[in-house]
Amino acid sequence: MSDFQMTVLGSGSAVPTSEHNPTSQIVLYKGKQFMIDCGEGTQMRMIRFKQKYRNLDHIFVSHLHGDHYYGLIGIINSLHLMRREKPLKLFAPKSLEKVLRLQLDVSNTRLNYSLQFYALEDYNDKPLFSDHELVIECFPLKHSIPVWGFLFREKEGGRRIDKTFIEQFNPDIEDIKSVVQGGGFITPKGEVLAHEIITLPAKPPRSYAFCSDTAYQTMTAEYVKGVDLLYHESTFDQSGKHLAEKTLHSTAAQAARVAMEAGAKKLLIGHYSARYNELELLVEEAREVFAESYLSIEGETYMID
Amino acid sequence: MSDFQMTVLGSGSAVPTSEHNPTSQIVLYKGKQFMIDCGEGTQMRMIRFKQKYRNLDHIFVSHLHGDHYYGLIGIINSLHLMRREKPLKLFAPKSLEKVLRLQLDVSNTRLNYSLQFYALEDYNDKPLFSDHELVIECFPLKHSIPVWGFLFREKEGGRRIDKTFIEQFNPDIEDIKSVVQGGGFITPKGEVLAHEIITLPAKPPRSYAFCSDTAYQTMTAEYVKGVDLLYHESTFDQSGKHLAEKTLHSTAAQAARVAMEAGAKKLLIGHYSARYNELELLVEEAREVFAESYLSIEGETYMID
Repeated sequence: MSDFQMTVLGSGSAVPTSEHNPTSQIVLYKGKQFMIDCGEGTQMRMIRFKQKYRNLDHIFVSHLHGDHYYGLIGIINSLHLMRREKPLKLFAPKSLEKVLRLQLDVSNTRLNYSLQFYALEDYNDKPLFSDHELVIECFPLKHSIPVWGFLFREKEGGRRIDKTFIEQFNPDIEDIKSVVQGGGFITPKGEVLAHEIITLPAKPPRSYAFCSDTAYQTMTAEYVKGVDLLYHESTFDQSGKHLAEKTLHSTAAQAARVAMEAGAKKLLIGHYSARYNELELLVEEAREVFAESYLSIEGETYMID
Repeated sequence: MSDFQMTVLGSGSAVPTSEHNPTSQIVLYKGKQFMIDCGEGTQMRMIRFKQKYRNLDHIFVSHLHGDHYYGLIGIINSLHLMRREKPLKLFAPKSLEKVLRLQLDVSNTRLNYSLQFYALEDYNDKPLFSDHELVIECFPLKHSIPVWGFLFREKEGGRRIDKTFIEQFNPDIEDIKSVVQGGGFITPKGEVLAHEIITLPAKPPRSYAFCSDTAYQTMTAEYVKGVDLLYHESTFDQSGKHLAEKTLHSTAAQAARVAMEAGAKKLLIGHYSARYNELELLVEEAREVFAESYLSIEGETYMID
């Protein structure tokens, strides 16, 4: 368990198989849940992998190929039947709103809660989400229809109070507040301890990036520079390079190249074509380019540390 | 195995559970497949229960609540990716066409095959399907939005040639044709055997009816009179009668009452509310009214004989 992690609900591509559901992931950051993409059957996967909706207030949809959103209306409807009351924010390509509103219309459904729609087209230069510790941004990928990647990054934190200071001087709450705000501390003996003495440097901010579906493009590495964990689609292996080119998807080697160029710490590949029964050749191909490459596996949770 | 059977792909209701997928069934009649309803995840169920699409040319959607159609666009899209070429006939409430066309539009998908749409509203007094041996009709049920049931019935066949006649006289092909067309037979010894002597009565035509979602209504028994197998929803047990009334669903006892009034041979109940972990109380309630009541179980195939 980490306070920043990602759980894979589906890692297959357009045609589901007995092994793989289409794309969906849950990012958990300090108790907040964020869903990325929502292929058909995602709500069944939520049940199977014991995920709850209680802290899910944001859903991000990368693009309008069905394997990335056909499960969304089912979740929207189930949340209604489960009597959700708090708003749900949905960030997706503009046209999705029409589809969802029409689906609710034809079934004569008036949701108990507010479904708040935000068009990704409007977020080229501003974050999708920002609070005191986390920012979520989108960036353009390269596919047959408009598609966006998502970057979750922690904000730069302040210096952290050193535990040994607490243990040694047992400061009261007012003293702690003052240190948090950048102050020092005067010991009972009158000794002045500077802020830098009783605090540790800020933890380096952590980050996660999601890139699917996309052909290789040099810009992707710029968008996800230095990311701790990078998910990048690799629909094909090298032998399917012509298909990757034709369908604007990536090979495992190309996904690894993005990870390398970005200086990512770790790469997860996914969006496997239904043609692969064994996925080892994909991850082996990636590792030849970028050693820290791994398969994304449905039901597994990956720490961002 | 029978040449007329029904396989249950999903028997849950609106909110999926770890046990149940939403409604979908496959009717198989002499090699032809017909799908009834198509809740989310139906294509995964098709894979799991080893159903193929090769002989599936007709899909019937009873109504536009999502648990009866959210899986349809996924199948339409997968058939496209699997390079289907032959047309697919879809019989559904009129508004579904708009939803599907919009979903194909936003993903910029032009199907390889022809998706032929037929509005159920236009079939009040003519069959949805009819060939030399099978007729499929729809009839109105009673729910919060327009909903149709479906009746599959064999046409009255002719008398059948008696096997013992074949064994005894080894007639040639012309003789057999003549008997099939109603003629008699002259034995080598010149004896005249009348048509009725060398044939057996026609087999009684078999039939299957699907009724979901619906409140109890007296007309349903009229529509499905004498059916061999009746599927009738029973979302609730008696203790949920007020909910059944409010939501225009049926209790198990009401489903059984329809079976009894219709003189059905056998009843399958389904569309179980997510509240039931154990379904036995539902089928026991039904059996108090109609002894030949059974649970519909996902993955099971029911013969219509």
